[in-house]
Amino acid sequence: MPRPLSAPKTLNMASQSVINSAAYHNGIRVADVPLADLGDAWNHSDRFIWVGLYEPSEQVLSFIQQAFGLHDLAIEDAHNAHQRPKLEVYDDSMFVVMRTAKLSAGGDRRIEFGETHMFLGPRYVITVRHGSLQSHVGVRARCESTPNLLAKGEGFVAHAVMDFVVDQYFPIIDALEAELDELEVHIFSGVSERSVTARIYHLRRDLLAIMQAVSPLIDVSSRLARTNSHLISADARPYFQDIHDHVVCIAGLVDSLQQLSQTALESNLALISVSQNDDTKRLAAWAAILAVPTLVAGLYGMNFKYMPETGWVWGYPASLAMMGLLCVALYMRFRSVDWL
Amino acid sequence: MPRPLSAPKTLNMASQSVINSAAYHNGIRVADVPLADLGDAWNHSDRFIWVGLYEPSEQVLSFIQQAFGLHDLAIEDAHNAHQRPKLEVYDDSMFVVMRTAKLSAGGDRRIEFGETHMFLGPRYVITVRHGSLQSHVGVRARCESTPNLLAKGEGFVAHAVMDFVVDQYFPIIDALEAELDELEVHIFSGVSERSVTARIYHLRRDLLAIMQAVSPLIDVSSRLARTNSHLISADARPYFQDIHDHVVCIAGLVDSLQQLSQTALESNLALISVSQNDDTKRLAAWAAILAVPTLVAGLYGMNFKYMPETGWVWGYPASLAMMGLLCVALYMRFRSVDWL
Amino acid sequence: MPRPLSAPKTLNMASQSVINSAAYHNGIRVADVPLADLGDAWNHSDRFIWVGLYEPSEQVLSFIQQAFGLHDLAIEDAHNAHQRPKLEVYDDSMFVVMRTAKLSAGGDRRIEFGETHMFLGPRYVITVRHGSLQSHVGVRARCESTPNLLAKGEGFVAHAVMDFVVDQYFPIIDALEAELDELEVHIFSGVSERSVTARIYHLRRDLLAIMQAVSPLIDVSSRLARTNSHLISADARPYFQDIHDHVVCIAGLVDSLQQLSQTALESNLALISVSQNDDTKRLAAWAAILAVPTLVAGLYGMNFKYMPETGWVWGYPASLAMMGLLCVALYMRFRSVDWL
Amino acid sequence: MPRPLSAPKTLNMASQSVINSAAYHNGIRVADVPLADLGDAWNHSDRFIWVGLYEPSEQVLSFIQQAFGLHDLAIEDAHNAHQRPKLEVYDDSMFVVMRTAKLSAGGDRRIEFGETHMFLGPRYVITVRHGSLQSHVGVRARCESTPNLLAKGEGFVAHAVMDFVVDQYFPIIDALEAELDELEVHIFSGVSERSVTARIYHLRRDLLAIMQAVSPLIDVSSRLARTNSHLISADARPYFQDIHDHVVCIAGLVDSLQQLSQTALESNLALISVSQNDDTKRLAAWAAILAVPTLVAGLYGMNFKYMPETGWVWGYPASLAMMGLLCVALYMRFRSVDWL
Amino acid sequence: MPRPLSAPKTLNMASQSVINSAAYHNGIRVADVPLADLGDAWNHSDRFIWVGLYEPSEQVLSFIQQAFGLHDLAIEDAHNAHQRPKLEVYDDSMFVVMRTAKLSAGGDRRIEFGETHMFLGPRYVITVRHGSLQSHVGVRARCESTPNLLAKGEGFVAHAVMDFVVDQYFPIIDALEAELDELEVHIFSGVSERSVTARIYHLRRDLLAIMQAVSPLIDVSSRLARTNSHLISADARPYFQDIHDHVVCIAGLVDSLQQLSQTALESNLALISVSQNDDTKRLAAWAAILAVPTLVAGLYGMNFKYMPETGWVWGYPASLAMMGLLCVALYMRFRSVDWL
Repeated sequence: MPRPLSAPKTLNMASQSVINSAAYHNGIRVADVPLADLGDAWNHSDRFIWVGLYEPSEQVLSFIQQAFGLHDLAIEDAHNAHQRPKLEVYDDSMFVVMRTAKLSAGGDRRIEFGETHMFLGPRYVITVRHGSLQSHVGVRARCESTPNLLAKGEGFVAHAVMDFVVDQYFPIIDALEAELDELEVHIFSGVSERSVTARIYHLRRDLLAIMQAVSPLIDVSSRLARTNSHLISADARPYFQDIHDHVVCIAGLVDSLQQLSQTALESNLALISVSQNDDTKRLAAWAAILAVPTLVAGLYGMNFKYMPETGWVWGYPASLAMMGLLCVALYMRFRSVDWL
Repeated sequence: MPRPLSAPKTLNMASQSVINSAAYHNGIRVADVPLADLGDAWNHSDRFIWVGLYEPSEQVLSFIQQAFGLHDLAIEDAHNAHQRPKLEVYDDSMFVVMRTAKLSAGGDRRIEFGETHMFLGPRYVITVRHGSLQSHVGVRARCESTPNLLAKGEGFVAHAVMDFVVDQYFPIIDALEAELDELEVHIFSGVSERSVTARIYHLRRDLLAIMQAVSPLIDVSSRLARTNSHLISADARPYFQDIHDHVVCIAGLVDSLQQLSQTALESNLALISVSQNDDTKRLAAWAAILAVPTLVAGLYGMNFKYMPETGWVWGYPASLAMMGLLCVALYMRFRSVDWL
Repeated sequence: MPRPLSAPKTLNMASQSVINSAAYHNGIRVADVPLADLGDAWNHSDRFIWVGLYEPSEQVLSFIQQAFGLHDLAIEDAHNAHQRPKLEVYDDSMFVVMRTAKLSAGGDRRIEFGETHMFLGPRYVITVRHGSLQSHVGVRARCESTPNLLAKGEGFVAHAVMDFVVDQYFPIIDALEAELDELEVHIFSGVSERSVTARIYHLRRDLLAIMQAVSPLIDVSSRLARTNSHLISADARPYFQDIHDHVVCIAGLVDSLQQLSQTALESNLALISVSQNDDTKRLAAWAAILAVPTLVAGLYGMNFKYMPETGWVWGYPASLAMMGLLCVALYMRFRSVDWL
Repeated sequence: MPRPLSAPKTLNMASQSVINSAAYHNGIRVADVPLADLGDAWNHSDRFIWVGLYEPSEQVLSFIQQAFGLHDLAIEDAHNAHQRPKLEVYDDSMFVVMRTAKLSAGGDRRIEFGETHMFLGPRYVITVRHGSLQSHVGVRARCESTPNLLAKGEGFVAHAVMDFVVDQYFPIIDALEAELDELEVHIFSGVSERSVTARIYHLRRDLLAIMQAVSPLIDVSSRLARTNSHLISADARPYFQDIHDHVVCIAGLVDSLQQLSQTALESNLALISVSQNDDTKRLAAWAAILAVPTLVAGLYGMNFKYMPETGWVWGYPASLAMMGLLCVALYMRFRSVDWL
Repeated sequence: MPRPLSAPKTLNMASQSVINSAAYHNGIRVADVPLADLGDAWNHSDRFIWVGLYEPSEQVLSFIQQAFGLHDLAIEDAHNAHQRPKLEVYDDSMFVVMRTAKLSAGGDRRIEFGETHMFLGPRYVITVRHGSLQSHVGVRARCESTPNLLAKGEGFVAHAVMDFVVDQYFPIIDALEAELDELEVHIFSGVSERSVTARIYHLRRDLLAIMQAVSPLIDVSSRLARTNSHLISADARPYFQDIHDHVVCIAGLVDSLQQLSQTALESNLALISVSQNDDTKRLAAWAAILAVPTLVAGLYGMNFKYMPETGWVWGYPASLAMMGLLCVALYMRFRSVDWL
């Protein structure tokens, strides 16, 4: 059985994907545990193990699977990103998939999605990040600063990680609300720009993506709050209820924004039509203002022998004046009915 | 343990946030209780405590938490506004979050939302207002005027506060209904103003906000009406059922208004198109009325040597008369087909 | 205790609101009972009391409350109109709220809503009408004509009243269906009148109001059909199931009409656009027919010295003929491509 | 008691409505049973009775009611058409209402709805048709050809009738799918005919009517498949599950067609607008092509003394050539930008 | 009883429809079993039979039915394609219907649907393909390469086949997403082509078809994951849960695409209107630029005797210059307000 020998070498290679791997005793970090020693460390029945992985290789995952006895399907899921958020409950472990989201750093509002998977078992938590940019270092630091809570073990850590992921959605919702507010101003200011429609479309695409990421968590968090698994102690359940409330709140906000952006899209269409009508009227008014003197000029261009006006000395300036007067009268008229 | 000493000083500073704090015996107000004495007052097993807070500081809340032994999560929620309406049931207490709403005093219809949180336990009720403008002084006065009901304790007070909050929505619904009625008149009077679309949009935004505030209360009130907690006695439950009926009624009205405003938006769009069509026809008609005499004038402007009319003495006035007649005929024609 | 003395006087004053108040024995009307004697009459354990009120004063209601021992909340509801249809089940009585509807007598289709409340207890039924125009005299007469059924007591009477209220909706649905049929004819006949949109809007408003009135009855009737209250005997329950079927049927019809009217609204918009397009084409065609001879006239209005045609004797009539021919040719052409 | 005497006479008169009435023994037809003998025939405990009625009179129905002891409400329903599909379960009988549908024989696709009611009890089935054009003769013949199945009694016959009714919907769905396919071709071929919108509207009206007829059967068939009534034996239940699958399938197809026809309606609107735009561009292009030579002609119609061109011999043909060239150039240009 | 004799002959004829028929022992293929010997082979209680059929004739199916004792209804379903996906549970067997989907090989994105039916019983699996182009040879090969899993029997094979079918949908979803991305580019690039609308329509039709195929599998897979049938062992159930997750994921993606394509359709309509408006403005601008010099030319075409300019030597070129200047000024003006 050559595995114990080859493992260290393989794992060295892959160890970039191990962000953090530590053992805790009574909520105090007592040791950093290399991947190869995880199984042994876990056998200390008084130690809690928390491992953080980032896009691990198949080898790392299969090593972890052996160390903690994880289910084939969960390991397969953890290797592949593009999972839908879910909670799988196995006999003595749980597997949670969540989608993370982050506004891109650049100027344009763009949401970058990633994934955080979490294995949860007696005295261990393993988190696996895929493409999610914000590491869990902050979460770990915060947990380590409250040893009395951390001492409560896996349920507490699972809550901390999940809370961290869910809270990332609030600034995004704020950004989308701000975007819609800005769009409102554009729509109702009467400028029917082509870009407004595109921006509403992209807003709605973002909202759909967030809804897809968040809505499965309603069920996940609710099940965690009502679970009777020993992994989540009774006093930890209200904390998952709290996460549930947050997720429901986010889903409600997204739903509102979806409905409102739909109304914005329809209002936009209505106002484009109003603009069209206004422009048509303006065009018609100017056409009329030009057509009337053209008609008059046409009249005096007729070749009748007996046209008294054409013989008058003041005929020409009089005709010009008449044309000018007609134009001004029409202009005033159109102004008064608000066509110009 | 320096807390008993420092407490009075801290609390003095924060006491602006304590609006009212009183103990009741058999429904009769027997004492105003300063914040520092709440724990002692509550130990009188025959006294009921009702505390009203307005945007309390963290210190005031943590003092309250110690006095009544409230749950960490509820206190955290009570400190932050922007909660979704909900009911949390703990072992021996409940925590209710509601959104309040009020029409702004100014001329423009604008809804100001606030929040009322409520802790409910054996022989105590604590209300926390955030940004909600209407104080509960009226509720307290009304309760104190019916000591036999107030003597029933926390369930009765909880009902009174909740009833007060829910009843605030009815005048708002009335105002929104009035707004929609007014919009109907505008839409169907044929004036396709740009502002109509904007007003429908804002109406819909308001309706969504109210729905977000009210719809979670359907579940909250229903659970309170069916609870078997000893905090809400059996004879108090029909009163929560009554609140439930009100909330369902509000939600139904908002839903109707949402659907109707959607139809109004679509009708508006259709009528804008009809207006557009009418204007296009009117424009076409006037263009024709001008084009015909222009053509006639063009004819007599041709330089043919042998044009008998041009030699006639009455040629010029005759041609003018003909043009006038053609214009009048066209005008009559367009009138009859309703283009003018 | 002066109430027994003052009651008759007060009640005299208010007795306009008592439409009918009778006691029945084995389904046979045995006595008219004045309001003041209701309590006594009810104490005859072999008599059934049926009271019909119309917009009763607070005094009448509180007298009724004392006579039959009704719940405060139900009495409060019965005094106020504008309740949502519902069923409240108390220990030994039930309270039913229904909305009534009636087409207005005048020529314009307008629906007048009212309310019928009903208290249901052992050996008594009290109906309270608010603004509903059709009295229950017919219902009572029909019940009295079948003493064997009336002898079954409160469940039977409750069914008769409820059936009466629900059946009022069918002619209204018929009227709305007829309205939609008429609108279809208007929409697809190609006349894009402004009024069509308004009529669809008002149709949809009516449908929403009916849905609000009817949909809560689905739950009410279903609960009555499945109740195990002794007030509704087992052999009466299929009759409430029958009402349930009617209500579900009405709700289904209204839902169909809502969807169909939505499609009508959208079809209307599409056809307005088609009309617009047709008018634009017609306008374009006539503009072209006028522009071509105008151009020709312009040509012969040029002042070139060497224009052979202008010297010809038949030049002028030939040019007129040419213009005429061009116009006819264009007219034929536009006809053939269906622009005219 | 004169009924036995008068019955034959009355029933003679009404017997046109009795299409078929036969007794079966072990699945073999043993006798035709006149209406008057139904009760006796049914008393043979080894005989199964199957009666087929077509729009029966009240008298026939009341005779049937007495013979088999049917419930008042079911008889009342069976007399009136315009019932919503449903299943009523009484103590020892069932009453099923179904809507039948058939494409009209004429050239235009039009759906004719009828109703089939069915009483189902121990050893008897009574079918009542209202306006449904396809008789059950075929069903009966098919059943009689498999005596071993027919011997299973009422459950089997009920299944056969229901299966017959449900299968009538499949050709209708096929016809509506064909209609939508044809409409697609029309819509996307660029011909924005007025009739397309009308046809989509009528398609949607038909789909709604079918949905109303079919969707209640989902519940009816599911309840029959899960019933524990002795009327439907355990081995008959999978057959009702099969009907359930068909009904769900039909409802799914109708739902798809509804959504697709909605998209077709919206696509139609979009393409009407595109057509409008194309026509506007074409109109604008031709207007420009006419306006340019008109301008040139106007220039040479000016009365300046010193216009060298007007004195040239080739001035006139040159100007005409220039106009022609300008027109051709514009025409080419508009062609290249796809306006013509 | 001539069947044993005639069977081989009949089955020879039909045997093209038998793709594969093998017996397995402990997960190892031990024999190819001709159709005629299936019953015998199955009687070896230690052998597992896996038969693969392709569009079998009625005779083959009835032979299979006798060999394994399958239910009439399932056999009838298996013979007919056009079933809705479903799971039928019989006493000791299951029948699963799934729809398969595949992108057509040609250049145009077109989805070809087929069906895979599966009989599942103790120690046997029979798959029946209808029109589905991808054979199960790959599935069988993969299963045979893991004998330890294949040894687990019917549940494992059922999972493998179902997984294979469900995984076919992912590349299709990817293709539809790519199509929508491409459409987005077209829509927002400002080219309002007629084909864009048609493509959105066909995208939506495809999405509806996929939803119809996939959504019933949510229920099917969920029931298989929660079944307590002995056919699916406890350790196989998480694998069906995994399929359930995939199906829910596909349904979620399709739903997102449906909503997004709806928004795309509406955005398209809005942008067509914007285009229309832009074209109208451009047309109006050019009309004005032509109308102004036409008016000026008309002025100097008037026949007044006293028009000083007409006598000037530079009158003609000056007038032309003025016209040119006016045109350029207008052009600049329209440019600056973005009409040109």
